Amino acid sequence: MSQQEHIAPTSDLGDSDFERALSQVRIVLIEPTHPGNIGSVARAMKTMGLSKLVLVNPKKFPHYEATKLAAGAESVLLTAEVVESAEQAIADCTMVIGTSVRDREVTWPTFDPRQTAELVDSHLLASSDANKVAVLFGRESSGLTNSEMDLCQSQIRISANNEYSSLNLASAVQIIAYELRMQFIGSRDDNHELQAAIKPEPAIKERQMPATQKQKEGHIQHLQNTLEALSFMKAKSPTVLMRKLTRLYNKADLTVEDIQILRGILTAVQQQMDSTAGESNAGDVE
Amino acid sequence: MSQQEHIAPTSDLGDSDFERALSQVRIVLIEPTHPGNIGSVARAMKTMGLSKLVLVNPKKFPHYEATKLAAGAESVLLTAEVVESAEQAIADCTMVIGTSVRDREVTWPTFDPRQTAELVDSHLLASSDANKVAVLFGRESSGLTNSEMDLCQSQIRISANNEYSSLNLASAVQIIAYELRMQFIGSRDDNHELQAAIKPEPAIKERQMPATQKQKEGHIQHLQNTLEALSFMKAKSPTVLMRKLTRLYNKADLTVEDIQILRGILTAVQQQMDSTAGESNAGDVE
Repeated sequence: MSQQEHIAPTSDLGDSDFERALSQVRIVLIEPTHPGNIGSVARAMKTMGLSKLVLVNPKKFPHYEATKLAAGAESVLLTAEVVESAEQAIADCTMVIGTSVRDREVTWPTFDPRQTAELVDSHLLASSDANKVAVLFGRESSGLTNSEMDLCQSQIRISANNEYSSLNLASAVQIIAYELRMQFIGSRDDNHELQAAIKPEPAIKERQMPATQKQKEGHIQHLQNTLEALSFMKAKSPTVLMRKLTRLYNKADLTVEDIQILRGILTAVQQQMDSTAGESNAGDVE
Repeated sequence: MSQQEHIAPTSDLGDSDFERALSQVRIVLIEPTHPGNIGSVARAMKTMGLSKLVLVNPKKFPHYEATKLAAGAESVLLTAEVVESAEQAIADCTMVIGTSVRDREVTWPTFDPRQTAELVDSHLLASSDANKVAVLFGRESSGLTNSEMDLCQSQIRISANNEYSSLNLASAVQIIAYELRMQFIGSRDDNHELQAAIKPEPAIKERQMPATQKQKEGHIQHLQNTLEALSFMKAKSPTVLMRKLTRLYNKADLTVEDIQILRGILTAVQQQMDSTAGESNAGDVE
């Protein structure tokens, strides 16, 4: 029974809200030519938490190059579905999105990857868990046909260099998967307590905690005393100088340990002066 | 003359505000093992409009695999700089950012790619065209060393699947380059005339400009010499202490003037010691 208690949160974790959303999105590759690209796409997907890959008439699959480039993401390849048409790949989907680099005569509603991620998120949030989304990627050489685009409600266009927009297939998948992940995490896991429970932040050691204002002021006062003893203040305008130093150290977001180190150095400087002050004074007496 | 009219807009386009910002960012690969990865990185960069690549001790470069995988982005490889250390790669940079998947004992300020793009954008907008930003990527096998991370003001962590976070090097570059591009386009090209009219940047005085890496290193070296003279180093582990101090000052985004003030103080401490050293030495002779 105590074991069950242990198991429950883990299974919740694997089934967290944003992960469930990711599981409702599939990547569809239409007639990919290079098996290496299929492997790289699997890897890109898995890093971002996507798992469902559908291949429409792949030229070579399964293939050792796909497995090699999947580099540990074979689970995506092993569960990949192979079908014969785009229609089959998306038959049970409630939202279908195409990716395109071409300008077309009939223009589809076009969004960038971030806007698309928001659309997908709204679609999945608005309706039941049964909703399924497909993102279609065309052939390496020629993209999606017009009849394949006809299956889509909208298209994604990734902003790219006008002079060189040749995004690798896996790179395009990577960017879109990344945006989906960021969007789902952002919209679903605002619930901080939950996140804290899932991901116990390594306890920050006391010395790595941000210094309090009082500790910071203690350091600045210590610094000022030392600079006065060094006669450094005479040369410069003391107020302006101390303001600049205060600002400089404020920029650093000092930790408790930082302050300890800085004050340790100041103490060493003062001890050095104290130890020689006796000698100098002795000299003065002569 | 009609030809000239054609040429003008093209040149304006090539020099647009967001493209200039992209030209101020360099990608630094530390000891990349696979030449294919260098080519894929070049391709990822060029699609997003980044052009400056610096390679620190690449195992094989130039190499036909790099050229093959660059797939039309050879210009990035042809202008890539090859250097022998991370320090050389970033010597003239005003902001240095590391990428990491490891948890480290000394924790750097950590941001996701989007937050990082905002930071970089602010840094480039806030100051002159002279600002330069480096994003460091570590070895395929082991990432960045601690001493390489010590050169960085912050680190990027890309959100990834807990169970499989093995992002390909080029994919990591792709995501970060994509975020930089989206950020620069968003912040700079909403309305050109308006931005130009509203925000004629006051010429920032030279001393308020971000210090270069070289100037920062000069300060840290000066600090170390002073601490050694103070015998402060004996008490503590020198390497750990200097790393902590480097990190502390890196957090502060020091300006040229900040460095002048800090080095002025160090000089005052040293003069104090020199003036008394004679006396102590004289004492020793007795």
